[in-house]
Amino acid sequence: MINIVILGTGNVAKHLFNALLAANNINIAQVVGRNKKALKYYSDYTNVTNNYDDITDADIYIIAVSDPAIGLISEKLKSKNGLVVHTAGSVSMKFIAEHDNHGVFYPLQTFTQEQKLDFASIPFCLEASNSKNLELLKTLASSISNNIYEISSKQRNTIHICAIFINNFSNYMYHIAHTMCNENKIPFDILKPLITETAKKIERISPFDAQTGPARRNDIATIDKHIDQIKNKDFKKIYSLLSELIMKTNGKKL
Amino acid sequence: MINIVILGTGNVAKHLFNALLAANNINIAQVVGRNKKALKYYSDYTNVTNNYDDITDADIYIIAVSDPAIGLISEKLKSKNGLVVHTAGSVSMKFIAEHDNHGVFYPLQTFTQEQKLDFASIPFCLEASNSKNLELLKTLASSISNNIYEISSKQRNTIHICAIFINNFSNYMYHIAHTMCNENKIPFDILKPLITETAKKIERISPFDAQTGPARRNDIATIDKHIDQIKNKDFKKIYSLLSELIMKTNGKKL
Repeated sequence: MINIVILGTGNVAKHLFNALLAANNINIAQVVGRNKKALKYYSDYTNVTNNYDDITDADIYIIAVSDPAIGLISEKLKSKNGLVVHTAGSVSMKFIAEHDNHGVFYPLQTFTQEQKLDFASIPFCLEASNSKNLELLKTLASSISNNIYEISSKQRNTIHICAIFINNFSNYMYHIAHTMCNENKIPFDILKPLITETAKKIERISPFDAQTGPARRNDIATIDKHIDQIKNKDFKKIYSLLSELIMKTNGKKL
Repeated sequence: MINIVILGTGNVAKHLFNALLAANNINIAQVVGRNKKALKYYSDYTNVTNNYDDITDADIYIIAVSDPAIGLISEKLKSKNGLVVHTAGSVSMKFIAEHDNHGVFYPLQTFTQEQKLDFASIPFCLEASNSKNLELLKTLASSISNNIYEISSKQRNTIHICAIFINNFSNYMYHIAHTMCNENKIPFDILKPLITETAKKIERISPFDAQTGPARRNDIATIDKHIDQIKNKDFKKIYSLLSELIMKTNGKKL
């Protein structure tokens, strides 16, 4: 049985909590957070506290807070001997190296408050200060996921940037389409099968091979017509820049 | 029984052909194309010709060729009385108005040669020169899809631009991530669950509400760090522009 303390009550903390609660060999000894109201949810299942001087001893302390708060929380764990990990994509492991036992436990997924996730398929990026700690993190991760990677801080930072392109920026493409549909009284639902298929395609072929459309075909006439037709200046700029880059990337292979 | 002639042998033509071949009330009387090699596939199932003066009479002629070739093919159908439709996103219906009976039969999906598609969920955007022709197109579309929309040329053009943002540009985001993974010896597979979940989220919540990440949080420190770390100048530019726009769009609601 691995004893865990979770520090934080936000989206990542809550999703991790729910997944670990259902795991067999894990005991969540305590959840620590400033926000009394947020702690209420957890108090039905385990001990909670908003007093950082009252943190229970545990095997692993999971710091699941926003990046700027990691240092503060890490400081509160100074006297502890257990393994201290954070869950952030772009914070180096070194940042919490003041602890003898430290590491990173980064779940690579987009977390929204009310969305249930299949944790088994979520990739966990693990890093630890020594091999014993790494083994402990592997045991922890494998209790909730089948998708475990050993990833350095440098690689994790790149992965985080990639995740921003894939999630944040693709989502913004959806947002642009959503806005243009609303303005033209088109039901956004008409585009949902395309959203699904665009993502699905990548399971089998590379993004390079999956690229289609006017820019892929060097179809300048259509591109110019579209740029002319898009009214929003920002959307126009994005259409223009991305078409240019697709032509640069895929153009040669035509 | 509706008699069909398909003109064209590319991706869209082939996918439509396969779907219509399996439909109950449809007879594909002929497939017409320049490319003899491409015609071979179809010749196992129906009549084929590469002679545009030898086009069979039919109820509907489906022009499924690249945009610039539509005019040429349409010209070859001048003497025909059946309904002539094209399958293009950004070509106005007026473009083939020389035919008494004309319309548009636009499947809103991304077609790749070797990818099987579930046609039942593909949205069909229909437009026709009169209500009788529209009814005929509805019968045709409903033989292969449950997802039928009546869409004007102006709306269809907007939908096509939206489809470029959703498919072409999201796919380019995947390409950027793929490139950065390769450069840093990170298996791209690690990002696939995120690709799937990003698309899945939109089934339930709007892109605006689904937006997460440093730009959504106005986290300038992380954004600046990332821009500094991205080596490729084009990728840097995209990261910068899209972060700026997400802050502009979502920033207020924080």
